[in-house]
Amino acid sequence: MPTLREVGELEAIARLGRAYARAGAGARGGEPDGEGVVLGIGDDAALLRPAPGRDLAATTDAFVEGRHYVPWAFTPRETGARLAHANLSDLAAMAAVPRWALLSLGLRADHDIDLLVELGHGLAQALAADGARVVGGNVAAVTGAEWLSLTLLGETPRGRAWTRAGAHPGDLLAVTGFPGRAAAGLLLASRLGAAAQGAEWRTLLDAWRLPRSRVRLALTLAETGAITAAIDISDGLAGNLARLCEASGVGAELEEAMWPRDPELERAGETLGIDPDRLRLGPSDDYELLLAVNPERREACEEAARRTDTPLAFVGCLNQASNVVVRVGKDASRRPLAVEGYDHFTAAGS
Amino acid sequence: MPTLREVGELEAIARLGRAYARAGAGARGGEPDGEGVVLGIGDDAALLRPAPGRDLAATTDAFVEGRHYVPWAFTPRETGARLAHANLSDLAAMAAVPRWALLSLGLRADHDIDLLVELGHGLAQALAADGARVVGGNVAAVTGAEWLSLTLLGETPRGRAWTRAGAHPGDLLAVTGFPGRAAAGLLLASRLGAAAQGAEWRTLLDAWRLPRSRVRLALTLAETGAITAAIDISDGLAGNLARLCEASGVGAELEEAMWPRDPELERAGETLGIDPDRLRLGPSDDYELLLAVNPERREACEEAARRTDTPLAFVGCLNQASNVVVRVGKDASRRPLAVEGYDHFTAAGS
Repeated sequence: MPTLREVGELEAIARLGRAYARAGAGARGGEPDGEGVVLGIGDDAALLRPAPGRDLAATTDAFVEGRHYVPWAFTPRETGARLAHANLSDLAAMAAVPRWALLSLGLRADHDIDLLVELGHGLAQALAADGARVVGGNVAAVTGAEWLSLTLLGETPRGRAWTRAGAHPGDLLAVTGFPGRAAAGLLLASRLGAAAQGAEWRTLLDAWRLPRSRVRLALTLAETGAITAAIDISDGLAGNLARLCEASGVGAELEEAMWPRDPELERAGETLGIDPDRLRLGPSDDYELLLAVNPERREACEEAARRTDTPLAFVGCLNQASNVVVRVGKDASRRPLAVEGYDHFTAAGS
Repeated sequence: MPTLREVGELEAIARLGRAYARAGAGARGGEPDGEGVVLGIGDDAALLRPAPGRDLAATTDAFVEGRHYVPWAFTPRETGARLAHANLSDLAAMAAVPRWALLSLGLRADHDIDLLVELGHGLAQALAADGARVVGGNVAAVTGAEWLSLTLLGETPRGRAWTRAGAHPGDLLAVTGFPGRAAAGLLLASRLGAAAQGAEWRTLLDAWRLPRSRVRLALTLAETGAITAAIDISDGLAGNLARLCEASGVGAELEEAMWPRDPELERAGETLGIDPDRLRLGPSDDYELLLAVNPERREACEEAARRTDTPLAFVGCLNQASNVVVRVGKDASRRPLAVEGYDHFTAAGS
């Protein structure tokens, strides 16, 4: 298990490159270099060939050791995959096809090269499952906390990307997956330690540790023309709903009666002494999508969710009350939705 | 001078976005959003519209506080500009037109927001001078050393990018600027402290602190069709020459007699007790280009250098001795060129 100091920068980059290629070759129909890659790792820049008539969607997201990932919780492979998912989720929210990624790493010289290769392979595998390849990167040496910064590029048919700004009053609100589960998983792991690893909490721990890509759903939904606006909710559903409303100039009603039951989350809420709704609506590393849906095309959405095996729940609707987000209780009570977003700098912790 | 903790993440991102827009608006003929930017900062991803028939060149480079930048040496504006130049130089080496950038930041909560805005503005100004815009990014909180990771995208006419692999035996070797000056500037600043700030060392300090873009030269040279291969030499001329030779399957002769005199560098060598050739050929943060030139088009190259006001020196030629790099002394002595490249992980320091 040699360290980066022992193998050196060039050898580390070469081994990472082979790990990326292996992950790419394992993908459905994948060639190692990947379609649209004129020149991958090994020159001053990668050379890529976008398909004609497409727009590019470009996003970047970073993980910091000790904050976004911790050795006790994640294997290197899982950390790599989670970083891929954090970025894939942004492209899903634009209905973009993931294509090319650049990985910038801040690593300590005592980092084990084999563990680094596992991380790179996990990341590249998660990308490859949605058709994307690592085509470049950078390594820098650090002495303190390590960090991983990924930039992901995707393509959409020209002018057809989803944004946060297209929703209309009357549109329905839908959400994928089971928001809050990742936050519950994190809290269970931190508070219960080894006791959280049992079968009892498996669903919630997995929601945190092993996110699922919503790219396939997004691309299937894009074909229906049903989606008027979309946003990724990894900063918290309430906060991201407020941002979508602001961008679209609409208001929203979240209806508790429409929200699907999640007994696992409720059980976690009891154990943790936290209202499950706080987990659902607050900051949580669920890489899920919040969607504004043309009500006339609701059925096409439900069909797309079935075809891609994705949980999709309609949880409210949009209205003309610009920027006002109301929570409608099961008893028809109405109160403003508290926004508890995650702020990296003012937050007490992660 | 509020800190990030005081203003919060969203406000910090908003102020950075305004700084980028200001820099873009100040550029020649620039509109704030920039050509080809369908959607900038503020959604899940940026949306970009590549020009038809172009390839994309994509690169990423990162700076780590205390290693690539230090408060005693650089203002925030200079640090931002240098990071831009580190990436611009990679695109210059591909003869790509810089277009779009994403900036991923690892920042401490006590970072002064005004200084951060200066850094962002300096970076965006340096990019804007070559026609590129910051279109997205990410901020993450760190507790130790800060870091800045930039991804830069550019465009080249399809299939026309320079690579390291196209050089032929018989091609001439040319280099821009005055390699070694940045290394000299760094060493002078570290060893002499305040005494390095005088007019005496100004040229060398500036070479280190205020790199110049070679993008305009590269694009002008690209029109001549004279360049067969290119590489950025920021890891050291000898090391990067070896890489170009390896990629092209050629050998090289560097001729000392052809190398232009650099009295400033020689004076620094004396003061520092270092052979100036070691500075020239070893690791140095000179963002300069090493070019393989079709000898029949040498004059067109010289004309391009004059038109863009860029120092360009012909310093050797390529041959069939695959991967063998020879240094030819003024006395016609021949010896192998020692490669002293920079390795982030095995290096004793920066």
